[in-house]
Amino acid sequence: MTYERSNIASMTGYASGEQPDDPQTIKLNTNENPYPPTPSVSKILADIDPMALRRYPPASSLAFREAAAKIHQVDTDNIIATRGGDELLRLVITTYVEPGQTIGMSDPTYSLYPVLAQIQACPIQREPMTDDWLLRDNFAARMNEIGAKLTFVVNPHAPSGSLLPIRRISEIAEELDGLLLLDEAYIDFVDHDYPTIPLINQFDNLIILRSMSKGYSLAGLRFGYGVAAPSLIEPMMLKTRDSYNLDLIGQKIAEAAISDQPHASETWSKVIGERARVAHSLKEMGLYSSPSQANFILVTVPPSMNCSAGTIYQKLKERHILVRYFDDTTTADKLRISIGTPSENDALLSALDNILHQ
Amino acid sequence: MTYERSNIASMTGYASGEQPDDPQTIKLNTNENPYPPTPSVSKILADIDPMALRRYPPASSLAFREAAAKIHQVDTDNIIATRGGDELLRLVITTYVEPGQTIGMSDPTYSLYPVLAQIQACPIQREPMTDDWLLRDNFAARMNEIGAKLTFVVNPHAPSGSLLPIRRISEIAEELDGLLLLDEAYIDFVDHDYPTIPLINQFDNLIILRSMSKGYSLAGLRFGYGVAAPSLIEPMMLKTRDSYNLDLIGQKIAEAAISDQPHASETWSKVIGERARVAHSLKEMGLYSSPSQANFILVTVPPSMNCSAGTIYQKLKERHILVRYFDDTTTADKLRISIGTPSENDALLSALDNILHQ
Repeated sequence: MTYERSNIASMTGYASGEQPDDPQTIKLNTNENPYPPTPSVSKILADIDPMALRRYPPASSLAFREAAAKIHQVDTDNIIATRGGDELLRLVITTYVEPGQTIGMSDPTYSLYPVLAQIQACPIQREPMTDDWLLRDNFAARMNEIGAKLTFVVNPHAPSGSLLPIRRISEIAEELDGLLLLDEAYIDFVDHDYPTIPLINQFDNLIILRSMSKGYSLAGLRFGYGVAAPSLIEPMMLKTRDSYNLDLIGQKIAEAAISDQPHASETWSKVIGERARVAHSLKEMGLYSSPSQANFILVTVPPSMNCSAGTIYQKLKERHILVRYFDDTTTADKLRISIGTPSENDALLSALDNILHQ
Repeated sequence: MTYERSNIASMTGYASGEQPDDPQTIKLNTNENPYPPTPSVSKILADIDPMALRRYPPASSLAFREAAAKIHQVDTDNIIATRGGDELLRLVITTYVEPGQTIGMSDPTYSLYPVLAQIQACPIQREPMTDDWLLRDNFAARMNEIGAKLTFVVNPHAPSGSLLPIRRISEIAEELDGLLLLDEAYIDFVDHDYPTIPLINQFDNLIILRSMSKGYSLAGLRFGYGVAAPSLIEPMMLKTRDSYNLDLIGQKIAEAAISDQPHASETWSKVIGERARVAHSLKEMGLYSSPSQANFILVTVPPSMNCSAGTIYQKLKERHILVRYFDDTTTADKLRISIGTPSENDALLSALDNILHQ
């Protein structure tokens, strides 16, 4: 017999990008930052006293939250630290969405959202986007119509990298009857000043997600955080979060990483520069991408090419270069390619040139 | 307005034991192991390449699971690695218990269970125990009567440290209509051979929880695991677990710790020896405890004493010694005291002697 709940039995789970064991593989499939994290990491690891590990860690990640609050010029009680952005997404659903209530999102979007909705037995509603991968003007109105208790907006958008004007974020937060989860996992790669955090003082229904995985080169650490009004943060901090959700070592490294803004910014600038170069070179090969403000680009393989997107994905993989191919209706002719180091990007461009002209 | 779900709004959350900043405090309140973790920890920390942190960690903690499977002589697919035992408890509820279904447990028990039930909007049923802190003979029958979809049994029991015979575990698993979560967070401190893991091959409704926090001196790492039939492990691995639930550093340290059984066993022996000594000395002061197989003892303060349990807790705290006082009906005259190093235990005994005879 199965003991699973019916909503769990009927779901398939989240498929994350491939993580090959082979260290020679060029990984441009999971949007990791190609540059190392802050040099402080080595010192922190060297300074960890193993004896300190026998005790429970600081329960609320206070030192990290203070550092993040300082960077963002908000209060510590505006911040919750979580195990990657993923834990924040789950906590928001657990805390604020009853089983059976609808969760809204764009189509396409980050593929974890529907999975988390299924776990809570919540129906989802997906709204199509414009041809430029932006939310349609009636997005918030549609969310209200379908009674969305929670709406997920990933901005810069995944998998396209498109960016909404801040004014649009305000309008959507203002108009929505329910909560707005603004997923800013890729925000660090925007090439101009883009201050959304102050919006949390204006809207008591807005939760902003930040991640240390991409911007701070710490995907292996599992650390993220949420920024919102204290009324939204507190129930997650005191009630629904696993007690001691973050380990001692992770808290120390994340605190050092967010405090070293100069190091992180330098990696962002390098990625932004390479993003422009890669997009330009791909365009010269006939592979167009819409403008991206993230650390990846979504490339369209036109029907006139001698290869489909799926075939190119396979042929790159044979050459030990991984990119991401989503085999669904809106993206079946596209590849999402993370921006790597200059030499990784060169290897990609050269392999693509070879595949398309063989 | 509040956006919280009604079940969340009406709950208060889990209160973990105090974690003072003062390093001079003698902490005998949260059952941490007083001895350091495996000496391999320092080498692992020194060998971490910060560049490796920029990539996502192994998603399923395979190397740790292989090491744990080898120790327990089960298959890798019998094991799920989790962020402390707490994540496993949550995953079992999320995966197997519908909101509204009843969760059963003894009274008293680990105080996190009712909190996790509230988060899932599940009613709970608490069954009183015998005077020796054992489950009554009709425990499983009662759980079936009230329709428990899931029953939590912590063994050794918290907060008393009592241990059920293995035969009783079998009988309960056999008789229960629903799932049995056997929480073995303290099992490493049992003073004799006590093989429960093979029971998972016999019962497809049994999930055994293990923790690295106490037995392996790694409370700061947040690492635990579940052992069960693959049919129970798989839905949690593939569907309800946060993708990448464990970070790279934690996986490496936990793997080394579980593989160094000689080191861990030595800490267990020392704690077991001190447990007997502390219990004996307390008894001579008139403070009785029932036999404990955990790394703590539950001491009763008799009405004839000049101090109540609450007062002793306060007076110890003034002397920078923390023990745990649960102010509820079944334990209001008791203190739960973790076993520390010999010198910590001496300080406790001397302070108690002083408090009781002043």
